[in-house]
Amino acid sequence: MARIALEISYDGSRFAGWQSQPGGKGVQDAMENALRKLGESARVFGAGRTDAGVHARAQVAHFDSARDWEPGRLVLAVNAWLPESVSVMRAHTVRDTFDARRSAAWREYRYFIWNSPVLHPYIRPYVFRLPGSHYNWNRASASAGAFVGEHDFRLFCRAADRPENTVRTVRSAALHRRGSLVVFRIVANAYLTNMVRIAAGGILDVAAGRRGEEWLRSLLDGGDVPKRPRTLPASGLFLWRVLYDEGALPSR
Amino acid sequence: MARIALEISYDGSRFAGWQSQPGGKGVQDAMENALRKLGESARVFGAGRTDAGVHARAQVAHFDSARDWEPGRLVLAVNAWLPESVSVMRAHTVRDTFDARRSAAWREYRYFIWNSPVLHPYIRPYVFRLPGSHYNWNRASASAGAFVGEHDFRLFCRAADRPENTVRTVRSAALHRRGSLVVFRIVANAYLTNMVRIAAGGILDVAAGRRGEEWLRSLLDGGDVPKRPRTLPASGLFLWRVLYDEGALPSR
Repeated sequence: MARIALEISYDGSRFAGWQSQPGGKGVQDAMENALRKLGESARVFGAGRTDAGVHARAQVAHFDSARDWEPGRLVLAVNAWLPESVSVMRAHTVRDTFDARRSAAWREYRYFIWNSPVLHPYIRPYVFRLPGSHYNWNRASASAGAFVGEHDFRLFCRAADRPENTVRTVRSAALHRRGSLVVFRIVANAYLTNMVRIAAGGILDVAAGRRGEEWLRSLLDGGDVPKRPRTLPASGLFLWRVLYDEGALPSR
Repeated sequence: MARIALEISYDGSRFAGWQSQPGGKGVQDAMENALRKLGESARVFGAGRTDAGVHARAQVAHFDSARDWEPGRLVLAVNAWLPESVSVMRAHTVRDTFDARRSAAWREYRYFIWNSPVLHPYIRPYVFRLPGSHYNWNRASASAGAFVGEHDFRLFCRAADRPENTVRTVRSAALHRRGSLVVFRIVANAYLTNMVRIAAGGILDVAAGRRGEEWLRSLLDGGDVPKRPRTLPASGLFLWRVLYDEGALPSR
């Protein structure tokens, strides 16, 4: 028996989120079904509980294997049983105390906005489409740094989803633009539900000139602000990578 | 009445090629159907007859409009009637003698190879997947320049598809690699059927060490070579752009 960590890539538009669902439409269900075909009946635990429609470039998950797999062979075997919308990119044998979620030090998300009235069909499922031409991305980019540091993110979460502790630490946050593509990158220790999509909504309010950077800063103080930014659609969001103290994916 | 040139992007996996089909599964059919909804009954003529499954980043086509469109408005109107798998990116009013195919000076195609045993699900429809690790891309890259110049490409086409004149001029040809992604770019005045896919197959033979650059050069002399390279799948091929003497898309 060995604990194995997997790096998993998926097209979120085909799933009802990471977490196992009664109808079996979670990525977790697809993973556990494929592993069962290989004689592995363990549960699979993910680092980030991505919501319905959210994509992953490199989700990390762990499970306790009943067999002694050569990691490269396990990758090919499990992919042979997975649907086309999800793939295991890497596997590592890890120490028995490794926990994909609890051991994670930092998680990077990227939110992709396509700011143009026209859109290439092949990127449609992976961006938030914003047709207008009145956005000031330089201004938005300058304000993105406001997220960095330790903040009370309680306004970056619906009241119904709010946990007791809403303080999170952001290591870096930046907005870059290349042609029509605008990318918001954020690296934090942990996230509240919809936190990145609401943060991207706040950035958008600044880009649109509806709000200024001070407003963004006031939201981050967790102050009594009447109106929080809107939650941008899941389609533009990717769980980009999960970082562990030992490195991206530690081997035993 | 005015002649209008359109820049069109499509996901080739959803179509039976550019050309109009009896069952209406050609991109041309989709374009003509959408224009009919706007009261335009003209035929649409494309610069490149992409085959079934081949994608386009910027196909160019022209038609004779019955109305006096503001180009930006036409783009939005026609996209409202097109399926999600095809989009008009730009429109230009052009001189009456402009012909998307005949006026084109150069056409650029790009062939995308994903050389890794594992694949992100969201790029699957847009690459040719090559799992092996024994390819020498530096060697293949060094030999890609062999295509440049005027050559008889008769071996880069099935005998059944071969036109009388098989001489074509290649302005540039190069192979670049970034991580698992290998891209073959070629700019030529015109192409034979499957020419880029067979050229990419030849490059692959060199990368695999099955053949050398001299063999590639002997094929380009149109010599009596018993075995031509295989035709790589349509999924990896994009019609990237069409160049006109007047610029990318000339206005009137």
